[in-house]
Amino acid sequence: MSIAQSQHLPLDFQAVLEAGARLKGLVHRTPVFTNSTLNKIAGRELFFKCENLQRAGAFKFRGACNALSLLTADQLSRGVVTHSSGNHAGALALAAKLFKTRAYVVMPENSLAVKRAAVLEYGGEVISCKPTQQDREETAARVQAETDAAMIPPYDDPRIISGQGTAALELCQEFPNLDVVIAPVGGGGLLAGTCLAAVGLSDQIEVIGAEPAAAADAHESLKRGERILLPTSTSIADGLRTNLGEHNWPIIQKYVQRIICISEDEIIATTRLFWERTKLLIEPSSAVAVAAALHHLGSGDSEPQQVGIILSGGNCDLDRLPWS
Amino acid sequence: MSIAQSQHLPLDFQAVLEAGARLKGLVHRTPVFTNSTLNKIAGRELFFKCENLQRAGAFKFRGACNALSLLTADQLSRGVVTHSSGNHAGALALAAKLFKTRAYVVMPENSLAVKRAAVLEYGGEVISCKPTQQDREETAARVQAETDAAMIPPYDDPRIISGQGTAALELCQEFPNLDVVIAPVGGGGLLAGTCLAAVGLSDQIEVIGAEPAAAADAHESLKRGERILLPTSTSIADGLRTNLGEHNWPIIQKYVQRIICISEDEIIATTRLFWERTKLLIEPSSAVAVAAALHHLGSGDSEPQQVGIILSGGNCDLDRLPWS
Repeated sequence: MSIAQSQHLPLDFQAVLEAGARLKGLVHRTPVFTNSTLNKIAGRELFFKCENLQRAGAFKFRGACNALSLLTADQLSRGVVTHSSGNHAGALALAAKLFKTRAYVVMPENSLAVKRAAVLEYGGEVISCKPTQQDREETAARVQAETDAAMIPPYDDPRIISGQGTAALELCQEFPNLDVVIAPVGGGGLLAGTCLAAVGLSDQIEVIGAEPAAAADAHESLKRGERILLPTSTSIADGLRTNLGEHNWPIIQKYVQRIICISEDEIIATTRLFWERTKLLIEPSSAVAVAAALHHLGSGDSEPQQVGIILSGGNCDLDRLPWS
Repeated sequence: MSIAQSQHLPLDFQAVLEAGARLKGLVHRTPVFTNSTLNKIAGRELFFKCENLQRAGAFKFRGACNALSLLTADQLSRGVVTHSSGNHAGALALAAKLFKTRAYVVMPENSLAVKRAAVLEYGGEVISCKPTQQDREETAARVQAETDAAMIPPYDDPRIISGQGTAALELCQEFPNLDVVIAPVGGGGLLAGTCLAAVGLSDQIEVIGAEPAAAADAHESLKRGERILLPTSTSIADGLRTNLGEHNWPIIQKYVQRIICISEDEIIATTRLFWERTKLLIEPSSAVAVAAALHHLGSGDSEPQQVGIILSGGNCDLDRLPWS
């Protein structure tokens, strides 16, 4: 399936349900945790969907597996290619290994050593490029031309969006009384998929996005009613620096009521609080959604709300903690 | 119940079963995790019992709750007292809160700020003392004389040992085919309780202790056939620096086949590996048992063994990581 073809895939609740069926046995059905101290801080009941415990350490593995499931044997024989400095890189390499194909992963030369190591460990091939969007895209296009591998983009793709939606699908099926679901938003794969899943299951549920104030393109886009591209961010939440994708934006515009913006200081403090209290490692990108739930949902009704939060990933550089 | 009385409590499998019944609804039934990468390193199937996810962040809460369950209303009205620089301090303070009584916790003045904060947060009263065994004991005795509070020691007590055994009880009931169970050993509350639970459920299971090479009193005691007291250790595994208790030693001598000793470097490397791979925060004391399972069980049989590991706790000083 080429990118052009994939654009014609239906992108709706049914697509998420089908992805869910397809991914059974491939992805972990991750656990949902609760924590009484965090409930007290929030004044709500919080349900944390632990995609930090997903294979390869992030929800990204869902989308990558879904995309590979939809390739033909002929396509699989030629491998897959992407450019990524983050969790999509490792996720695609691991998915390729399971589907017994090759992953060519174009990574900027300043990528974290731990992320490169993950790709190599899963048997992927790392191709270095300069750390600019242009060189990433050009290098990936060159690799694709040389290998005829299938391009698997990190978020701007219907197969990826419906795959990522399966995290919220599991969460909302397990806890059907959730009033709110919060997902972090970078390129919008997770948030758009979360919308399709949550709204498909309940017309009462509110879907909220959370993003760094330092990379607030989704917030700005929703306010202005059009997709805004902002200059590259340096937020500590490295998974959320990208702008919304083309496929992602209309879904988010249609279903997301609000995007909550979190300061860098609050992202760092929340990452630390979460580690200390829950003993679960989350990366700063996940802490953005946690901070929104803890401090930014308003005073609430008399009935305490039930709030689901997607913990997107747990791949941290343990040599450089955000607060040290 | 005084200490003298508590020494006459039966200390056997039945005591652990009764503690298990008593603790239902008070303690978390913690989850058991597996990890394919760690299985590959070990060449075995590893089952991690996550007491780092226990209330107050460690198995210690089990023993503290069990002890308090056995106090009379009259005793509870006068409060409880202990001396501890570690996880027993916070566990007792939280247990006291649940039983609506007062906890007087004597802590050496060099205790970690985060451990003192935990006691205070749970509503306990911290009494500072000099960081010597003598001043700890004298201060605790003075507080007890002043308040008539019940002394709840951290490990050398039948109520504590049977309470700690409920972690292995849950693990071995959930996974009845375990060939081996490994618990870290400091004062021996957890290891002795693990013996009673595991051997009570199966006469085929091997119980192994794991301790820092820098605090190898249990290893030395088992070798010599008598309880050896070593000078205070400075191991990074701060929960395992103490010597075996009097009640703990005969149980360990009877049931434990071997004690595996782990170097400081290996404790640190294993803590880090575990965080990185599982996204679960464990403290170095837990990593001692993990390291034993990963690298020190020998070549094994043709059938890969199933090994249970008690992850004792997850209370870390996030400002000073062991590897930084």
